[in-house]
Amino acid sequence: MLEELARTGRDPATNGYLRDAWSPPELELREWFAGEAARRGLDLREDRNGNLWAWWGDPAREPGVVTGSHLDSVRQGGAYDGPLGVVSAFAALDVLKNRDFRPNRPLGVACFTDEEGARFGVPCVGSRLLTGMLTPERALTLKDDEGDTLADVLTKAGRDPRGLGRDDETLAQVATFVELHVEQGKGLVRLDRPVGVAQAIWPHGRWRFDFHGRADHAGTTRLPDRDDPMLPFARLVLAARDAASRRDIVATIGKVRVSPNNANAVPGLVSAWLDARGPDETDVRALVEELRPLAAGAVSEESWTPVVDFDHGLRERLAAVVGGDKPAPILPTGAGHDAGILAAAGVPSAMLFVRNPTGVSHSPEEHAEQADCQAGVVALASVLEELCR
Amino acid sequence: MLEELARTGRDPATNGYLRDAWSPPELELREWFAGEAARRGLDLREDRNGNLWAWWGDPAREPGVVTGSHLDSVRQGGAYDGPLGVVSAFAALDVLKNRDFRPNRPLGVACFTDEEGARFGVPCVGSRLLTGMLTPERALTLKDDEGDTLADVLTKAGRDPRGLGRDDETLAQVATFVELHVEQGKGLVRLDRPVGVAQAIWPHGRWRFDFHGRADHAGTTRLPDRDDPMLPFARLVLAARDAASRRDIVATIGKVRVSPNNANAVPGLVSAWLDARGPDETDVRALVEELRPLAAGAVSEESWTPVVDFDHGLRERLAAVVGGDKPAPILPTGAGHDAGILAAAGVPSAMLFVRNPTGVSHSPEEHAEQADCQAGVVALASVLEELCR
Repeated sequence: MLEELARTGRDPATNGYLRDAWSPPELELREWFAGEAARRGLDLREDRNGNLWAWWGDPAREPGVVTGSHLDSVRQGGAYDGPLGVVSAFAALDVLKNRDFRPNRPLGVACFTDEEGARFGVPCVGSRLLTGMLTPERALTLKDDEGDTLADVLTKAGRDPRGLGRDDETLAQVATFVELHVEQGKGLVRLDRPVGVAQAIWPHGRWRFDFHGRADHAGTTRLPDRDDPMLPFARLVLAARDAASRRDIVATIGKVRVSPNNANAVPGLVSAWLDARGPDETDVRALVEELRPLAAGAVSEESWTPVVDFDHGLRERLAAVVGGDKPAPILPTGAGHDAGILAAAGVPSAMLFVRNPTGVSHSPEEHAEQADCQAGVVALASVLEELCR
Repeated sequence: MLEELARTGRDPATNGYLRDAWSPPELELREWFAGEAARRGLDLREDRNGNLWAWWGDPAREPGVVTGSHLDSVRQGGAYDGPLGVVSAFAALDVLKNRDFRPNRPLGVACFTDEEGARFGVPCVGSRLLTGMLTPERALTLKDDEGDTLADVLTKAGRDPRGLGRDDETLAQVATFVELHVEQGKGLVRLDRPVGVAQAIWPHGRWRFDFHGRADHAGTTRLPDRDDPMLPFARLVLAARDAASRRDIVATIGKVRVSPNNANAVPGLVSAWLDARGPDETDVRALVEELRPLAAGAVSEESWTPVVDFDHGLRERLAAVVGGDKPAPILPTGAGHDAGILAAAGVPSAMLFVRNPTGVSHSPEEHAEQADCQAGVVALASVLEELCR
C-alpha cells in the first residue's frame, strides 16, 4: 500500500514529500483512505475536525480500539512518518480477517488531520481540536504562508469551519488508541530489534523570536548607522546550540522568516522559530529563559506540550505481546504524536515504533526495511487481537 | 506626479512598495509612463530589452541627451528610489518648455527595466542587457521565486524574449545620460545642501553562500548526530560584519533561504546572499576570500560591478551649473545605478542626488522634502539646458 502512495505529493526534484494539510496531495490521500475503508467494508466517518475514522463495528454502541496515524507530511518529508501507521493499521486488519478473528468490540482505523503543522505552524491540529487542547477560535485564525486562514482553507475544501472544536461524542468512542510509527532515532538499531514500544514523549515547545531592526540600503548605510536584526538572530542560533548542549537536551532553529529578504537591503525584521525538547521540563524552560533576552524579550510561545507518560500497564502488556520470548524494548521519544495528545486527554494510548536504519526522519532519506515494516504489521495485529479479545 | 503613483503597488499593511519587474503594478507604471510621454507629444519607444524611451526630437538623426531612472522597486521599498528620477525628468522638460527653451539636440526621458533585481536577483537587468554586460543566455534563464524564468515572464507580458541582448542602435542614440536619484545616505544632510553630484560608484558584488547539511527531525536527532547548516550560516553573519568593520567597508546578509524551513526539522540547506561594497575593490575581494571557507567553499558570485568613476569634466560642469554661487557637492555612493552601467559602457554619464533627511532607503521610510524635490527638478532642468544648448 505504501507503494501506491509513493508518488502523491512527491517533489520530483528532491524526492521529498509536500503534503500540507488540505492541499491537493493531502486531499488525494484522504480519498485513498476512503477507498481502503470501502474495500474492507468499514464505515467511514469524518468528524467535525476533519479527522477520518473507518470502523469495523459500531462505536456508538460500545467504545472501540483504534489504531492509525496521519497522512500529511512536513515539507520535504519522508514516505514513512504518518503513512506507515495508517497503512499498517489497514494491513493489521487484513491479518486479523485472514485469521478469521472476530473482535469482541469495535475496531477502528484513524487518520488525524494536520499532525505535522507544516502549513499553519501548530502540530497535531486534528487531535488537539478533538480533545479541546486547541480552541476553534485560535485554530480558525491560524494563517498559512499565503495568508489564508484555516477557516478559508476548510471552506475551500468544502468543510464547515463552524463545526470545529472539542468533540466528546467522537472521543467517547475511543476506548484505547495505538499508533504505529517509524522510529525517529536509532534506539532500535542500537538494540538490534525491529519493533519497540513507546515509554513517554518528552515535554516540548515552540517559540517565535522576533528581532526588530530597521530596513536600510545595503550599499549606502554605514555599519555604525545600522540596526541589523540579522546579527542578534545569528547570536541566538549559536547560543541555542550551546545552551542545549550544556543541558543535554535538544534545541533547533529550523524556520526563519526575513523581511523584506532582499539581497541589497538590511532586513527590518527577522523571525526565528525555536523548537526545544528534553526529558525534563525544567531544563527546557530554563533554556528559553536564558535565550529570551537575545530578542529583547520579543518571544512568544506558540505551543507547549507537557511530558506524556504512556499508560504503564498498557505499555508493559503490549511489550509482552509484541516481543514474544523477550519483551519488546521500551523507548522514550522527543517527537510529538497524536497518541501523545490523546494520552494527555485521558485516553489509554500506546505507540509501537518500527526500526529506522539511519534514524533520519523529516527528510526524503527516512526509511524502514520491508521486513521490519512487516514485523510492525504482525506486532500491531497481535496488539489489536489482545485488546479486542 | 509622484502622488499619482503613490498607491500603485503599495502594500497596505506596511506602506512599502512591491513593484517587481513585469508584475501588475510595474506594468501599470509603464502605462503611466506612456501616458506622460503622449501628453507631452514625445515619441515613445520600447527597446528590445524592455527599456522605455520618450523622445523630444529624433535621436536616429543625432544622438541626444537622456535623463531618467527606473520605476520598479525593491520589495517593501520606498516611493522615491527610481520614480523620483523619472518624475523629475518629465517635470524638468516641463520647466524647459515653460521657459520656451528649444533644445538644439534630441532630448529623451528613459525608464530602465528591472533596476533593483528584486525579482530575478540581478540588478540593472535592462541597462546590462542594453550594453551587453549581461548576456541574453544568462538573463533568460534567471528564475523568480515562483520558478518562472525571465523568458516565461516576458512572454506572458507580450514581449519577445528572442529580442533580448546588446543593442548598439539604441545605445548610439544616447550622447549623454543624467540620472537624478534620492540620496541613499546622509551626505547632503551633513553638508546642508539640497542637491549634489555623484563622484563615483563603489565596486560591489553579490555572492551566494550555500550551507549544505542534513535535514533531520528536531525532536529525535541528538545534537552530536546532527549536521545543521544553520550553525555555520550564523557564524558567517557574525564574521561578515566583523570583517567589514575591520576593513571599513560594508557587508550585508539581507536575503536567506532555508530548506525545508520547518520549525520541527533541522534544515538540509541554508543559502545566504552576501552583498559587499567599498571604495576599494581589493578590500571587497579580500573580505569574500576571508569568508569563503565558512561555507566549505560553496560560494558563487552572482554579480560583480567594478568601480564606476563618472566623467570628471561632466561632473565638474554639472556641479557648477547646479550649485550657482558655490559648486554643488560631489559625493561617492555605495549604491549601483543604471547610470553606472552606462558609464562603464563608455556613455558619458552623471548623477544628481536629492537630499534624504534620514538617509534611509529601500524602506517605506525613504523620504525627500517637497522643496528639495523641486530644487532637484530646477537643477536637472538647468543641467539639460546646459547640455542641449
